[in-house]
Amino acid sequence: MKKYYLAAPGPTPVPEMVLLEMAKPIIHHRTKTFEKVMAQAREGLKWIFQTKEEVLMLASAGSGAMEAALANTLSPGDTIVAIRSGKFGERWSEIAKGLGLRVIDFDVEWGKAVNPKDIRGLLERHPEVKAVLCQACETSTGVIHPVEELVKTTRASDVLMMVDAITALGIVDLPMDKWSIDVMVTGSQKAFMLPPGLSMIALSPKAWEANASAKCTRYYFDLKKELEAHKKNQTNFTPAISLIQGLNKSLEMMKEETLEGIFTRHARLAAATQAAVKAWGLELLAPEAPSNSLTAVRCPSGVDGEKLVQHMQDKYGVTIIGGQDKLKGKIFRLGHMGYCGDFDVITMLSATEMTLKDLDAKIELGRGVAAALQVLHQGGF
Amino acid sequence: MKKYYLAAPGPTPVPEMVLLEMAKPIIHHRTKTFEKVMAQAREGLKWIFQTKEEVLMLASAGSGAMEAALANTLSPGDTIVAIRSGKFGERWSEIAKGLGLRVIDFDVEWGKAVNPKDIRGLLERHPEVKAVLCQACETSTGVIHPVEELVKTTRASDVLMMVDAITALGIVDLPMDKWSIDVMVTGSQKAFMLPPGLSMIALSPKAWEANASAKCTRYYFDLKKELEAHKKNQTNFTPAISLIQGLNKSLEMMKEETLEGIFTRHARLAAATQAAVKAWGLELLAPEAPSNSLTAVRCPSGVDGEKLVQHMQDKYGVTIIGGQDKLKGKIFRLGHMGYCGDFDVITMLSATEMTLKDLDAKIELGRGVAAALQVLHQGGF
Repeated sequence: MKKYYLAAPGPTPVPEMVLLEMAKPIIHHRTKTFEKVMAQAREGLKWIFQTKEEVLMLASAGSGAMEAALANTLSPGDTIVAIRSGKFGERWSEIAKGLGLRVIDFDVEWGKAVNPKDIRGLLERHPEVKAVLCQACETSTGVIHPVEELVKTTRASDVLMMVDAITALGIVDLPMDKWSIDVMVTGSQKAFMLPPGLSMIALSPKAWEANASAKCTRYYFDLKKELEAHKKNQTNFTPAISLIQGLNKSLEMMKEETLEGIFTRHARLAAATQAAVKAWGLELLAPEAPSNSLTAVRCPSGVDGEKLVQHMQDKYGVTIIGGQDKLKGKIFRLGHMGYCGDFDVITMLSATEMTLKDLDAKIELGRGVAAALQVLHQGGF
Repeated sequence: MKKYYLAAPGPTPVPEMVLLEMAKPIIHHRTKTFEKVMAQAREGLKWIFQTKEEVLMLASAGSGAMEAALANTLSPGDTIVAIRSGKFGERWSEIAKGLGLRVIDFDVEWGKAVNPKDIRGLLERHPEVKAVLCQACETSTGVIHPVEELVKTTRASDVLMMVDAITALGIVDLPMDKWSIDVMVTGSQKAFMLPPGLSMIALSPKAWEANASAKCTRYYFDLKKELEAHKKNQTNFTPAISLIQGLNKSLEMMKEETLEGIFTRHARLAAATQAAVKAWGLELLAPEAPSNSLTAVRCPSGVDGEKLVQHMQDKYGVTIIGGQDKLKGKIFRLGHMGYCGDFDVITMLSATEMTLKDLDAKIELGRGVAAALQVLHQGGF
């Protein structure tokens, strides 16, 4: 008898209450019933985005919202800066190039956070830049970028700061209005504790202003039309009905926990995971700016990351993930976001310890878990 | 955000697959569809009881099957021996007295197992005894009784050996036919991973012979009528339809694990729990014969068992239970049976450790969990 555990940095486990909500008979979207569901979701999303603006829901993966961000605010030939500190930074840059934008790629060593001073300098040297793109958390390396400081580099100008908050919103504090983030995108399968398939995006007044003259091609991802539809509690195309119903249940759970409670819990889970890594004598990939969403760990010498992930899944039923591209085989990534509590982290760390032991890593069984328990007990509950 | 964990010695957690099975639309019991369900359940129960006899399903708690055992094989005034080593031994004795039987109570110190030699001596001194009643596992103390040796004291005679296997069947090996157990009863809410409400009982040929002349009052629990109904894939009264559907799913899971796999897993989980208790420097209530179903632990001095249980539930969301009657406040009981895997035990032990620490017990956080991990890693997976 084996149970299965999902401890990846997305998709994340879906709570039973949310599953039950989504298991209800499907309703039609052009009805008053659905409009009530939409009204509730709109209000809840403004709360979690910490914005007065409309948060638009799209039936797409997060990458769709990343495309929408660019296509609705820029025109072919416009210059933008893409901060590339990992796989998802690269992706946003590629989407921009595909849309005909002129992209200045600003590369940051994988595992390091961007230095806002560098961006400030870059913007001074390139007054033609219309937008800066950055991940709040770069999922491929587990790094958290200094979003608050980054926004300060664009706030006083016409430059738009666009934040991919897919693996960060609902995990760490990202007050959109307060910090003046211009475009913020996220997806359903991380902190929202939902299956993938629903993305969300919000634009600041400055970004909506840019929208008026933006000429990039867009049809499915036309946010102006979505805005009009949303204001009537509708969507421009067939919405992901069940996911929006589930979203309302997730938001209900999140509101009950409070924003502060959510941020504190994720900080605690991350600290416990980091303490275990330290107790194992292993190194974080991003020691200077580790995120609260996931923890990327360098494999001990002699241990292949791909093998570690496969072994852990096959033998212990626990799913984590390895590295991508140049980090393939060299790291493993532990997720601790969304519907994740203290004992889920203990389970994940127990399985990791046993796997490391199986692969002949020099660790003492129980050492990491004990270190995590210390953190959870002190900081927790 | 708090998750809830059930780590009590029954009811035990119900697997998602079983919940989904029971969530199917209700079927009518006087149909061919239900008869197929019954046929499958009958076959599966014979496998887990390790018997050729019919295993009868009753819509009742386990205590109902304990009453049925007596009422269907004995007559008022008959003498029986009730081995009382805890709360459930006392209960069976009370049921017997209520039916007008003459009961010789054989008391065993709570936490100790019965010595079969004592029963042999008792039967020699009391040739009028018609039946001996014993728990396989006494849930109130966590002790396992030597059923195989006990049955040897009655096998060659007309005396019936009746075994309450509610917290033991599907956890440890109890081959009914091979050992010549005459009456074996169990319930749905332990190893069968189901909600409470369904009990099962099987009678040996010797017990069915006794049934012919048994005069105790019985109507709802008339096993002869149930036997006739079961042979037609039916029941004498309205059956617990959903529970029987769920039972088939549970049996499917159990068959996939195999009897040996089930017994090995429970032995491993018990050994890991016992190792943690030892590492905490605490004492088992039943050190000489601890069961594989649950572990009863003596509270450290200064710690109240009731408070411990309440604190653990309130603060950590983990439900265990305390002691009953004379053991109230003095012990706590950790369940590790049914839909319980290695990481469930780790969660339960982590919560227990943190609770003990909160209540100022002198333990080092992580010590017990590390000891359990050692056992699980060596003996496990």
